[in-house]
Amino acid sequence: MTIAILGTGDVGRTLAARLAELGRPVVLGTRDPETTRGRPVNESANMEDWLAAHPGVSLATFAEAAAAAPELVIHAANGASALDVLRAAGSANLAGKVLLDVSNPLDFSAGFPPRLFTDSTESLAERIQAAFPDTRVVKSLNTVTAALMVRPDTLADGAHTIFVSGDDAAAKHLVTELLRELGHSDVLDLGELASARGPELYLPLWLRLYQVFGRAEFGIKVVR
Amino acid sequence: MTIAILGTGDVGRTLAARLAELGRPVVLGTRDPETTRGRPVNESANMEDWLAAHPGVSLATFAEAAAAAPELVIHAANGASALDVLRAAGSANLAGKVLLDVSNPLDFSAGFPPRLFTDSTESLAERIQAAFPDTRVVKSLNTVTAALMVRPDTLADGAHTIFVSGDDAAAKHLVTELLRELGHSDVLDLGELASARGPELYLPLWLRLYQVFGRAEFGIKVVR
Repeated sequence: MTIAILGTGDVGRTLAARLAELGRPVVLGTRDPETTRGRPVNESANMEDWLAAHPGVSLATFAEAAAAAPELVIHAANGASALDVLRAAGSANLAGKVLLDVSNPLDFSAGFPPRLFTDSTESLAERIQAAFPDTRVVKSLNTVTAALMVRPDTLADGAHTIFVSGDDAAAKHLVTELLRELGHSDVLDLGELASARGPELYLPLWLRLYQVFGRAEFGIKVVR
Repeated sequence: MTIAILGTGDVGRTLAARLAELGRPVVLGTRDPETTRGRPVNESANMEDWLAAHPGVSLATFAEAAAAAPELVIHAANGASALDVLRAAGSANLAGKVLLDVSNPLDFSAGFPPRLFTDSTESLAERIQAAFPDTRVVKSLNTVTAALMVRPDTLADGAHTIFVSGDDAAAKHLVTELLRELGHSDVLDLGELASARGPELYLPLWLRLYQVFGRAEFGIKVVR
């Protein structure tokens, strides 16, 4: 069943490549596919080359991508543009579907490290749910770098915990099944969507750990 | 060498009891020792009884306690009263000393779960440092319940990570030695005091995990 992934940056492409590898057809959504095709993805390749190397992934507009996915849409663009991207996808194309939001409420306008553009009494996930009430928003995967979202078994210290928040139990179940398919063995349901405040507010600690370690390949394991 | 602990709640008493057990004389600081002596600490004992059972711990005013400690003062009162407590201790009694702040910027005025009274661009630890510039503030232990601060080896899943933040390397070293004496095997230096924003902003996730598990005995382990 086709999955739509909105956003063609590192997170979107990493998720798309792995899901396609697992046999799931993926439509990557972007604002302007022609412009995106010519955009470099690394020093030696542009998006056109990347798509040629990933035959299970196609490129379309945000709206076309969302319309093509019968069940699951993943928001993998920057948190700051989340509402714009989802409006471009179109509420009708998102209605009734599960929207997995993996983004973070980060404001890079003042440089690195970014600030949060939310406070502790809200979350980006809740803002998205409020703007798209007919969509079943689930928050997850925002606490790890893209490579660990899809290859969680690569840390020498062992498994890390992935959190799941959402108001719709069936939507959380679908996401949890996907997480297990990706190899996540420690998936922790935090409860309703408002519980996404916790994992989103973890980001400043994540950013500091990234500075301390000099690399993004780390996670946290809840121990008890 | 005598250690002062400001605050006679669960955190202060737990730290005091364990440090005294490890052979460190402790002076517990409170606003009004006579009032505190009559205050219940559980269903069957008041502070007077508790002190009788802990001969290595004495009770004094905030100022007397801080004055009695030549090197290390621990702030273990509520985060919301931190600056009041430290003003009562007196800047002269804190000058040049290491102040280990284990509190959190939690506002319980609207019930449980509490809100943070800081945002992501500051921390309580930095507010304390700004108010007491001659004191060497170190943030640590604020990410776990009191029992795990002093008995970190009691979790079935193994060791959890304790973070340390501070601008003064020697002060962080002293705190790190104390943490190791308490049994912490995974102590992670996050850098300067501003890095305490990360562990303080982790509190909403901690509070949610506490709701999910129904108990406070858990930690997080950084895995990489």
